[in-house]
Amino acid sequence: MTTDAKILTALRANPDGVSGADLAAHLAISRAAIWARIDELRKVGYDIEASPHFGYRLISAPDALHADDLLARLGKTRVIGRDIQVFEQTTSTNDVVEKLARDGVKEGVVVFAESQTKGRGRLGRKWLSPTRKGLWFSILLRPDLRPQEATRLIVASATALRRAIQTVTGISAEIKWPNDLLVGGKKVVGILTEMSAEVDRVRYVILGIGVDVNQDADEFPPDLRKLATSLKAASGEAVSRADLATQILRELDKDYARIGAGKFAAVADEWESACATIGRNVTVHVGDRKFAGRAETLDDDGALLVRSEHGHLERITGGDVILEK
Amino acid sequence: MTTDAKILTALRANPDGVSGADLAAHLAISRAAIWARIDELRKVGYDIEASPHFGYRLISAPDALHADDLLARLGKTRVIGRDIQVFEQTTSTNDVVEKLARDGVKEGVVVFAESQTKGRGRLGRKWLSPTRKGLWFSILLRPDLRPQEATRLIVASATALRRAIQTVTGISAEIKWPNDLLVGGKKVVGILTEMSAEVDRVRYVILGIGVDVNQDADEFPPDLRKLATSLKAASGEAVSRADLATQILRELDKDYARIGAGKFAAVADEWESACATIGRNVTVHVGDRKFAGRAETLDDDGALLVRSEHGHLERITGGDVILEK
Repeated sequence: MTTDAKILTALRANPDGVSGADLAAHLAISRAAIWARIDELRKVGYDIEASPHFGYRLISAPDALHADDLLARLGKTRVIGRDIQVFEQTTSTNDVVEKLARDGVKEGVVVFAESQTKGRGRLGRKWLSPTRKGLWFSILLRPDLRPQEATRLIVASATALRRAIQTVTGISAEIKWPNDLLVGGKKVVGILTEMSAEVDRVRYVILGIGVDVNQDADEFPPDLRKLATSLKAASGEAVSRADLATQILRELDKDYARIGAGKFAAVADEWESACATIGRNVTVHVGDRKFAGRAETLDDDGALLVRSEHGHLERITGGDVILEK
Repeated sequence: MTTDAKILTALRANPDGVSGADLAAHLAISRAAIWARIDELRKVGYDIEASPHFGYRLISAPDALHADDLLARLGKTRVIGRDIQVFEQTTSTNDVVEKLARDGVKEGVVVFAESQTKGRGRLGRKWLSPTRKGLWFSILLRPDLRPQEATRLIVASATALRRAIQTVTGISAEIKWPNDLLVGGKKVVGILTEMSAEVDRVRYVILGIGVDVNQDADEFPPDLRKLATSLKAASGEAVSRADLATQILRELDKDYARIGAGKFAAVADEWESACATIGRNVTVHVGDRKFAGRAETLDDDGALLVRSEHGHLERITGGDVILEK
């Protein structure tokens, strides 16, 4: 943990204030060094009060994401969030993580961007990433999975994101197979999983996640307003992006551990119970093919099993699944 | 086609000789330009005779691979060999093609290296690539396949390589699932398929192929001599690497077209009939797991179906399959 992260952790642990002397002793650096770091934190928007009586107190944190602060809030995780980087702007956070992956960086690193100029969704689609309105981030994973098992990571991501959103905002999102979370039928989360693999072995997976957090309804382009919403627009209340980000990483870390331990079935059960797709009539578009059916269940690899109108059970691993009334 | 490739094509089409005037007219360049190119070709090892009576005649081509010459020999293909590059040395030709893929280069480009410093095989293993002794090359493909269907490309590669070797050398190689060709029970060809994919869509596949061509038996390291051989060591005759390379590309182009046209079943039938694995008792190693069984058939995606000793049919997409007596 960096010095800044340690200072922020100590301030959060002591809401009534902590003295410079105690901080210096705790971090084993000089009081002057503490003062210099506090000064830097103030410059990036942390409101830190200093009084002779109470010592240092954290009054408020900025809305901007701050890597050290995220690390401090996150605390210890198994894999995910081992390292956190925050960019003011990138093309796509998946691009940044892909470069890290090729350079041999260990799994667990998380890259956030306050905005993306070329955010992307599944199937080559565009993903809007307005500055500081949402969480746009990517995670590097090196799971011991075969390529066809990578769908499990999407399923696990959806359950983890759902729990985090529930904890931080109280909103119960529905899951739409394979990679969307919906609130009131509108999309608030998209997940894009890109991987590099041999035929029988995944080398790395980049989990790209977009969460629409604090947009107002009218900030979405008109053609998206019926399809997309934000947590703020859905609940009427602004959400702390740093709180949500750390809770998401914590929950993802849990589910990633569950998959690593061979407990995908438990993740899949949780997924099914929150799923808007299972038990519904759907229209499936895969490439040029289109058919109607009823979504029955997930299989062991996270594929969706759809009973077609002709009674045949189809195994769906991609394409679009449209919910019908 | 480059000027060099056109000249070599014309020389091969006219083994009794072609006049400088005819060549110049055919290529629509000056006789002086023809002469200059012929001079360059001589410098890289082409023995081209010039006589007042017969004109230019190609007496022999060098053993070194030459991109223009390979293009000239190959002639028109559908996808594979649209562009050919030859490097004297690379780390791994897969690395070169991966860079091309990320730069958005179209499918079909083939990269050869006369030697590789970091040739690699499946599962992170090393692949020896001594200078000019074999064919070490990689092909960029952008197939419309899902990740789990990529095994089809390995199956198709094996059948194509087998036909090419049969045509050029007369040797009938056996296929060992999933990616080896064997002669007399020893490996002569390895195929490494690496891909970049979304969960439901392959973005690109790099087909890396190594063929041991002209090593003598004692040129293999002692610990490999029981496992590996070359076409020359197996047949007693040196093989023209350029002839073999172009024949391989031609056959791969055919099988790639068959897969694109949905005719994988025909490829799989051909594969099964040449397969040393089907119908054999095998020991399967997948990760930490090991079991014995009998290899029964390929499924629609190119996975191997093995009936375990307990009667359960297991679907194998990776790992090692050892042939038992």
